[in-house]
Amino acid sequence: MVDVGEKPVTRRRAVARAAVRMQLATLRAIESGALKKGEALAVARLAGIMAAKRTHELIPLCHQIPLSVVEVDFRADPAGSALEIEARATTEARTGVEMEAMVAVSAAALAIYDMAKAIDRAMAVDSVRLVHKSGGRSGRFVRPGEKPWPTDAG
Amino acid sequence: MVDVGEKPVTRRRAVARAAVRMQLATLRAIESGALKKGEALAVARLAGIMAAKRTHELIPLCHQIPLSVVEVDFRADPAGSALEIEARATTEARTGVEMEAMVAVSAAALAIYDMAKAIDRAMAVDSVRLVHKSGGRSGRFVRPGEKPWPTDAG
Amino acid sequence: MVDVGEKPVTRRRAVARAAVRMQLATLRAIESGALKKGEALAVARLAGIMAAKRTHELIPLCHQIPLSVVEVDFRADPAGSALEIEARATTEARTGVEMEAMVAVSAAALAIYDMAKAIDRAMAVDSVRLVHKSGGRSGRFVRPGEKPWPTDAG
Amino acid sequence: MVDVGEKPVTRRRAVARAAVRMQLATLRAIESGALKKGEALAVARLAGIMAAKRTHELIPLCHQIPLSVVEVDFRADPAGSALEIEARATTEARTGVEMEAMVAVSAAALAIYDMAKAIDRAMAVDSVRLVHKSGGRSGRFVRPGEKPWPTDAG
Amino acid sequence: MVDVGEKPVTRRRAVARAAVRMQLATLRAIESGALKKGEALAVARLAGIMAAKRTHELIPLCHQIPLSVVEVDFRADPAGSALEIEARATTEARTGVEMEAMVAVSAAALAIYDMAKAIDRAMAVDSVRLVHKSGGRSGRFVRPGEKPWPTDAG
Amino acid sequence: MVDVGEKPVTRRRAVARAAVRMQLATLRAIESGALKKGEALAVARLAGIMAAKRTHELIPLCHQIPLSVVEVDFRADPAGSALEIEARATTEARTGVEMEAMVAVSAAALAIYDMAKAIDRAMAVDSVRLVHKSGGRSGRFVRPGEKPWPTDAG
Repeated sequence: MVDVGEKPVTRRRAVARAAVRMQLATLRAIESGALKKGEALAVARLAGIMAAKRTHELIPLCHQIPLSVVEVDFRADPAGSALEIEARATTEARTGVEMEAMVAVSAAALAIYDMAKAIDRAMAVDSVRLVHKSGGRSGRFVRPGEKPWPTDAG
Repeated sequence: MVDVGEKPVTRRRAVARAAVRMQLATLRAIESGALKKGEALAVARLAGIMAAKRTHELIPLCHQIPLSVVEVDFRADPAGSALEIEARATTEARTGVEMEAMVAVSAAALAIYDMAKAIDRAMAVDSVRLVHKSGGRSGRFVRPGEKPWPTDAG
Repeated sequence: MVDVGEKPVTRRRAVARAAVRMQLATLRAIESGALKKGEALAVARLAGIMAAKRTHELIPLCHQIPLSVVEVDFRADPAGSALEIEARATTEARTGVEMEAMVAVSAAALAIYDMAKAIDRAMAVDSVRLVHKSGGRSGRFVRPGEKPWPTDAG
Repeated sequence: MVDVGEKPVTRRRAVARAAVRMQLATLRAIESGALKKGEALAVARLAGIMAAKRTHELIPLCHQIPLSVVEVDFRADPAGSALEIEARATTEARTGVEMEAMVAVSAAALAIYDMAKAIDRAMAVDSVRLVHKSGGRSGRFVRPGEKPWPTDAG
Repeated sequence: MVDVGEKPVTRRRAVARAAVRMQLATLRAIESGALKKGEALAVARLAGIMAAKRTHELIPLCHQIPLSVVEVDFRADPAGSALEIEARATTEARTGVEMEAMVAVSAAALAIYDMAKAIDRAMAVDSVRLVHKSGGRSGRFVRPGEKPWPTDAG
Repeated sequence: MVDVGEKPVTRRRAVARAAVRMQLATLRAIESGALKKGEALAVARLAGIMAAKRTHELIPLCHQIPLSVVEVDFRADPAGSALEIEARATTEARTGVEMEAMVAVSAAALAIYDMAKAIDRAMAVDSVRLVHKSGGRSGRFVRPGEKPWPTDAG
């Protein structure tokens, strides 16, 4: 565990993304709310937000930090037969918020898998990745080739 | 949430895998124990096992089930510049253990990301997928093209 | 803590209800999805289900039991200027599931309060009560004067 | 989830109350410590304090905030055949502490229900309500008609 | 993590003890309820019971098991200037309940430390030990030299 | 629960120690990594770190504080037939970090017990004690007779 006691409290932000590959029919069922388990995107959004708040319990060497906000959004990618997920997290803390964004997007993806697995057990979660990070000593990180989503004002 | 009260208690097993894509130098650092945060594989294994036990807290509509065992193993794939992770979970329960295996492999992958992100922020978690499932009414699932690992006796 | 080791494992069921008193305009905003915090009923439903799974962590002397299912439903009561909530829980266990239903309905009510408090801080949660209980040695309990909801097949 | 990153850290305080309606004999048993499950008020007080610390895990869109103190007190209301509960919470944070007070009072009430339900299953938790709030941009809230308790110096 | 899936479900019981060494004046303050933080023994008892229910979250390779009962008792030992604590746990499960008893007695001891540390920072928790274990394949264990407490009917 | 809202945020540090008494053969097995459950020290270290982060959930009247770092180290004491454990915790907070260090060292000791109990059920955790504390109004505490470990730069 890294000692963060000497670091200043600064505003930090991170954005992570993932893609849940699935059959096109599964994607349609999720979009139309036709899954038996119901409101899939609302459930997955909450799963992501709530998991982000527990990042320090899941990732053994992570510090607990006070999250200012966590947002989780979805975008259907019919061409790629995938549901894309983006999580954005911000904090005022002594250490970064990358893991919170990564955990949020992973939990949201796993919740989607859980809700649709009865009809498409071969789904896979791909490309769980950090796309943006700012604030803190290690500076800014922008993953090449990632475009902002309409909902991502960042 | 699906009502599982009428289902019989049977032995159920699930195996999930993921690949953490990284620079070859990062893979070497993990294998040799050279990361600043230390024992990366031991930490990631525990992260996977402990997260599996909390699957019902993370995935909103999952039932709490008594896990008989969770195992997490790692295999370096230098050709693919990736660390491969496999999680195996078994239970005696009224519902399946797929999500526990998927959560274990995801948490282990995220713990690897956390420990190595200072040297390789562009790592990505790929192909989080179910490769095997047995027990229960929905029967056996074997993902085509997946080969057993030496440690996977299943 | 009562020793339940000698009790048989039987199917047990409990139904609890509560009413969140609010201004009529608040009830309309919740029904129409117009709250700033969004999908209020979906969030409250999940809050109830997830809290039920953690009943033994919240209520000090409760046993952990495996929930077969938890369901949370809502019904607007414009005449009473209230949102009514019903939670139904079932288990196969050595002890009853009343507290899980009571916790589910309370958490759902508190989540509603959280999401609407910016527009109506004077809301109150009323009549958190057990309306039905079956299974177990202490037998059946039916609260007088409670009518089944359309969604409550029990 | 509301972004609180731009808000200043200020001292915030909230007081919530609830009434657990019960038979007069149940109230007497609680007051005299005659319940089989024992020290009912001490257990309920702790249930309230410990639940308050987990508010952000229970209420999906709540932020985690550092609680400066949580207090839970009880007052028998023989005329109303009820046990009244008051919870007071304070924080130095970017967002308010109302939900922590509401969760504390609810968890204490549910713990009372749990401990006395064997002798009085028809108890009900009534009037879970915010009675006071101060600090923060939305200003002061005082619920009309609520009188301070002897223990409430506020 | 040991695979317990093939083991039979049997009744298992464990008893653990510890001694909190302290100044005699501290022991007197605890016994008489004179601590500023209040009801020390009631708080410590609950801390033990609640921690026992979370043993699988604290001890990384422990299985989650359904506890039938956990009891925590205290006995002043003025001669040894110590508070003795005993925790008794039972389960119907595929694996033993020793760790639950050890965790209960440790958490109760730490809670005592927390409540009295303002007046006696040099207290120490000694002899956290298993004194009895029965049920399961590895058979009965009775620690030599331990006498039953009046409250321990076992 | 003590109200800490008026106290200043300062750097606070605490060191706690414990000794796990065991057979010499058990100590050798732990040192050599020969335990069936594997990497005992790595598992115990993580158990200590992760438990420290949850101190406020385990110790009922503890405040949640942001830990800057938690470190757990081990030292074999063949002369005393014991494994000694030291935990060091620091925070920037309004209240001290003693309980976090005490919880870390206790959880690490219990994890050792869990991993070695199959070969040595009579192990005992001894002398769980605070050895150093600095920061805060109550000032510095140094337990007489404790020598710094090579790894303890403090």
